[in-house]
Amino acid sequence: MIPPLRLRLTLAYDGSGFRGWQRQDPPDGPPLRTVQGELEAALGRLLNQPTPVKGASRTDAGVHALGQVVAFNAPARGLRVPLDRLAHALTCRLPDDIQVVDAAEAPPGFNPASEAVSKRYRYRLWTASQRPLTLRHVVHHCWTPLDESGMQDAAARLVGRHDFAGFASARHGRESTVRTVHRCEVWPGGASHPEELHIVVEGDGFLYNMVRIIAGTLVEVGRRRFPPEQVDAALATADRTLAGPTLPPGGLCLEWIRYGHGFVVG
Amino acid sequence: MIPPLRLRLTLAYDGSGFRGWQRQDPPDGPPLRTVQGELEAALGRLLNQPTPVKGASRTDAGVHALGQVVAFNAPARGLRVPLDRLAHALTCRLPDDIQVVDAAEAPPGFNPASEAVSKRYRYRLWTASQRPLTLRHVVHHCWTPLDESGMQDAAARLVGRHDFAGFASARHGRESTVRTVHRCEVWPGGASHPEELHIVVEGDGFLYNMVRIIAGTLVEVGRRRFPPEQVDAALATADRTLAGPTLPPGGLCLEWIRYGHGFVVG
Repeated sequence: MIPPLRLRLTLAYDGSGFRGWQRQDPPDGPPLRTVQGELEAALGRLLNQPTPVKGASRTDAGVHALGQVVAFNAPARGLRVPLDRLAHALTCRLPDDIQVVDAAEAPPGFNPASEAVSKRYRYRLWTASQRPLTLRHVVHHCWTPLDESGMQDAAARLVGRHDFAGFASARHGRESTVRTVHRCEVWPGGASHPEELHIVVEGDGFLYNMVRIIAGTLVEVGRRRFPPEQVDAALATADRTLAGPTLPPGGLCLEWIRYGHGFVVG
Repeated sequence: MIPPLRLRLTLAYDGSGFRGWQRQDPPDGPPLRTVQGELEAALGRLLNQPTPVKGASRTDAGVHALGQVVAFNAPARGLRVPLDRLAHALTCRLPDDIQVVDAAEAPPGFNPASEAVSKRYRYRLWTASQRPLTLRHVVHHCWTPLDESGMQDAAARLVGRHDFAGFASARHGRESTVRTVHRCEVWPGGASHPEELHIVVEGDGFLYNMVRIIAGTLVEVGRRRFPPEQVDAALATADRTLAGPTLPPGGLCLEWIRYGHGFVVG
């Protein structure tokens, strides 16, 4: 038997208007507005059959994505549009806070969650004293000045293979809390975002709320409430109380996901 | 009798969530969410008395501002905060889509609408083929490529003192439709907004929907549906059907207002 054609989509979305990625159908009410729910509805309309999708990352309510990766099986009778028109055809059927950036064939049975080799998240801090306005849903406002070099120092201590239990919410539900962070850096927003400071984290996987807690810890270091060495202590003891607060979801964005054979999506 | 202390505020707001600037209290329902309504509520809470304000521009639903100007009389018993803390104190009492950027003393009886000498509006066009995502409420998406030099040509024809009746919605309600446009230019979005083209218009006053109709006309020229000379015909005949469509409000922003003696607000 020929396995079904497996397809991979790359999605960008503004998470502000969603209750997260994962479809939620409460028994006693209408379905909540989720990215997966909207995407499956659009796919169903386009392909004329129910089309469940598998997403790479279950982003929380309010978290954004530039490169979420999704896989699904094409109907046995084929797509109704050429593959190179699929992204556009789906985007036209989606609300304006979701876009399909790319559509491509994937290996049979491709699982975008378990096969991910590396992911990059960015947490955007707004550091001007005036509040953000247009960008208020995609940045987190820090009122106090931040010590950038202290944050860099603390960020570098997170790189490597560590038990990140101290940087996860209690509900993480994973057996192992060991992850490898390939990169953790603090970047100025540059010419296009001069009021911002970005925390960029790449790793092979992330525990629940891990990037938001890393960001919260680095901000505490930036405010000189924590010395950079406290990161070492939080890693060594796995003590959640040594890490900083979980920052709000709006500052966080899933930028890209890398799979085997070097292909980067997003 | 000493006249009441007159104060001037400069406001920035994201118009997406508002039914426009002007307070609207329908007799048969709750007040609509407007910028004036929110500001007067915050002022009333801060000053402990009802405080009506006068705005310079009645921006429509969905239109943004970086430099809306507002005036009101301080209570006879004085403000409850020092003037140099007023902007911050008000901003803290406002929802996160409005900010008070500045507060200052104004001449007695200052009328921000009738005393304005010049205003600048900017209409932001998004010209990339991929849809805007984070900025979708502040830009208008043009799918087709635009002929920028044709647009520049057409824009230059609008500069000067003209009867702009052809560039106003029928509901403008003004006796005279003669206005002076001091500047009308098409600017690339630059390094910070490379996907954008901005239509910048400065003038001594604007008719209802005038900037959105100017933007719609320049886009028609950019698409080569209108020759640039059609602007001359629309001005000469005051024929609304010769101008382009009224573009949606979200692309428009009131940037600043200039008053006598050279002071610019915004």
